[in-house]
Amino acid sequence: MAEKNKNEMVVTPWEVRGKVDYERLIRDFGTQPLTEELLQRIRKHTGELHLQLRRGLFFSHRDLDVVLDLYEKGTKFVLYTGRGPSGPVHIGHLIPWIFTKHLQDKFKTRLYFQMTDDEKFLVKDELKLDEAKNFGYENALDLIALGLKPENTFIIFDVNDIDLLYDIALEVAKRITYSTARATFGFQESTNIGWIFWPAIQAVPCFIHAKLTGENVPALIPAAIDQDPYWRVTRDVAQKLGYYKPAQIHCRFLPGLGVGGKMSASELETSIFVIDPPDVVKRKIWNAFTGGKATVEEQRKLGGDPEVCTVFQYFTFLFEKDDKKLAERRMKCKKGEILCGECKTELTEGVNKFLIEHRKKREKAKNIIEKFHIKR
Amino acid sequence: MAEKNKNEMVVTPWEVRGKVDYERLIRDFGTQPLTEELLQRIRKHTGELHLQLRRGLFFSHRDLDVVLDLYEKGTKFVLYTGRGPSGPVHIGHLIPWIFTKHLQDKFKTRLYFQMTDDEKFLVKDELKLDEAKNFGYENALDLIALGLKPENTFIIFDVNDIDLLYDIALEVAKRITYSTARATFGFQESTNIGWIFWPAIQAVPCFIHAKLTGENVPALIPAAIDQDPYWRVTRDVAQKLGYYKPAQIHCRFLPGLGVGGKMSASELETSIFVIDPPDVVKRKIWNAFTGGKATVEEQRKLGGDPEVCTVFQYFTFLFEKDDKKLAERRMKCKKGEILCGECKTELTEGVNKFLIEHRKKREKAKNIIEKFHIKR
Repeated sequence: MAEKNKNEMVVTPWEVRGKVDYERLIRDFGTQPLTEELLQRIRKHTGELHLQLRRGLFFSHRDLDVVLDLYEKGTKFVLYTGRGPSGPVHIGHLIPWIFTKHLQDKFKTRLYFQMTDDEKFLVKDELKLDEAKNFGYENALDLIALGLKPENTFIIFDVNDIDLLYDIALEVAKRITYSTARATFGFQESTNIGWIFWPAIQAVPCFIHAKLTGENVPALIPAAIDQDPYWRVTRDVAQKLGYYKPAQIHCRFLPGLGVGGKMSASELETSIFVIDPPDVVKRKIWNAFTGGKATVEEQRKLGGDPEVCTVFQYFTFLFEKDDKKLAERRMKCKKGEILCGECKTELTEGVNKFLIEHRKKREKAKNIIEKFHIKR
Repeated sequence: MAEKNKNEMVVTPWEVRGKVDYERLIRDFGTQPLTEELLQRIRKHTGELHLQLRRGLFFSHRDLDVVLDLYEKGTKFVLYTGRGPSGPVHIGHLIPWIFTKHLQDKFKTRLYFQMTDDEKFLVKDELKLDEAKNFGYENALDLIALGLKPENTFIIFDVNDIDLLYDIALEVAKRITYSTARATFGFQESTNIGWIFWPAIQAVPCFIHAKLTGENVPALIPAAIDQDPYWRVTRDVAQKLGYYKPAQIHCRFLPGLGVGGKMSASELETSIFVIDPPDVVKRKIWNAFTGGKATVEEQRKLGGDPEVCTVFQYFTFLFEKDDKKLAERRMKCKKGEILCGECKTELTEGVNKFLIEHRKKREKAKNIIEKFHIKR
């Protein structure tokens, strides 16, 4: 029983565990699959499809078709995503940000990025408010390091920018009953009253562009699918307030490096954080769960299984940009022509090269972070 | 049954109806009566007791003795009261403000005054946020017209000043469960999530002095007793945050002018608003419920009953400052030496004189309101 519960899929804005069944999530959450037809419509505007679309990392959406309809008729959209700053960023966090940057570049549109220091403080018993705010600053450096355009990127630090958010949050909050919030988020008697209010704050960036510019345009939210409940509630409220419903495009979670490739952000050894020095990266990847066989002989003879291999997932999500080379690696693995040690060595090199570069850009970000504040 | 329910006492932060039994409120709310001993301690610091203390309008407290103990040992306190701006101010609203000014004058201490435009917006279905903010501005003029010292009076307009409030509100909100909030305020499934959070905002001015000045001192809250539930919750949280529990001193409600002297702020004819022109004041007072008899002859013979007379209450609360003259009026009424028409005429004169003067001061307040903003 314990084992069964351990493997049971749980996907909420605050907890992701178990083996994630993405097709079931589309059914359970009532979202739409990202069809080939939609991908082709995107390609019309972006040229070649982004790696994360080609490889199905973004797999589901709400109203992306509506946003494209509007776009093609001349109504732009804004991007909105965010981060709950409760610790350092790991590579899994960067995946949707990298895709968001791609959309910003291709559609030349604004990004509102919400740093939810207030939420993390409310939700994490031990986290102090100053700690959450500080992680917010640190995490913003990681975002900026990805190369987003300062003229089109507006980072909202909830606590410091609450004066911009509060009036819209009140308008939203007045239209969400406790009953709805409880059913959507699973609030309980022991939930604190700040947490209960907070979905109203998360809704605000969907609508803040109108407040700042007078332009009423839809927001498109690239994010992991666990955040979907927030948008369900926001979508119900949007039209009552005279705004477009926010659209979403949902991505898979980068699996952790642990057995079975399960997500376990809280298990430090199964995630690679941007602050991890090269030897730590090496150790984590070396201990990663792969699809390899027990012995070299067996693997040479029977081949490995890239589909369950967490190392292969890292190549797929970020570290092998070339589709042909990725296909080659898959084939070689299946045929036993490449051993886990080789993949791990190559991934370690790739990750460390990426992180060393990232940390340089991150240092430079300290000089320009003010350019990204929504109040500037 | 309907009649019984109509008269049943209901006293919550959002609703006061029925015949108010103040002794029962002390028992139900678990507050302390304002004893003769405490009044004498206050007199030591203020000289002659204020009319509202002499006449028992303030009748209950929490920790006033603790605040006086601290004060006598050299720890000052700050005053905190407020207003839910959902319409124009009536004379009943001015009563605790006048008393608060007295305390400010005598104890030479700061007042933090919270204008809860956010709460009123969340609680009143039909009220728009801009309307609530506008009432907040208008009501602040009425407060300032009473002559509070600008150097010691800090008005907090919740929506516009949320940047000062939010971090403390988060600290409070994290420590109040839905279960506690529901039990205290009677929240239901249909309550909106902004309203559920809001008690955390109302708690903030109890602690804001420490944030602004670094001085950790208790807050003393003069207010009508219906606001007590807020402070019960705040008191529980205060010490966890390293602050003093807020103390309170509770006043009675100025009765409305209607039959039975019941409060009915929503019945416009039974309250005298500061904007009411002289003829409206006259009409309202002329229609007031009194303790008079059906005919002049009867009244001359049997006398009236000042204890149930709403006109007499207005003299008691504000419009007869001289205790001897008030006692004379009571006696004359009981003996049938004065008729209701005479009292009504005198009260009308007194109220109109007061209001004409008030409105002049209110106009002048427009020139100095910035001096009272907490952000200045």
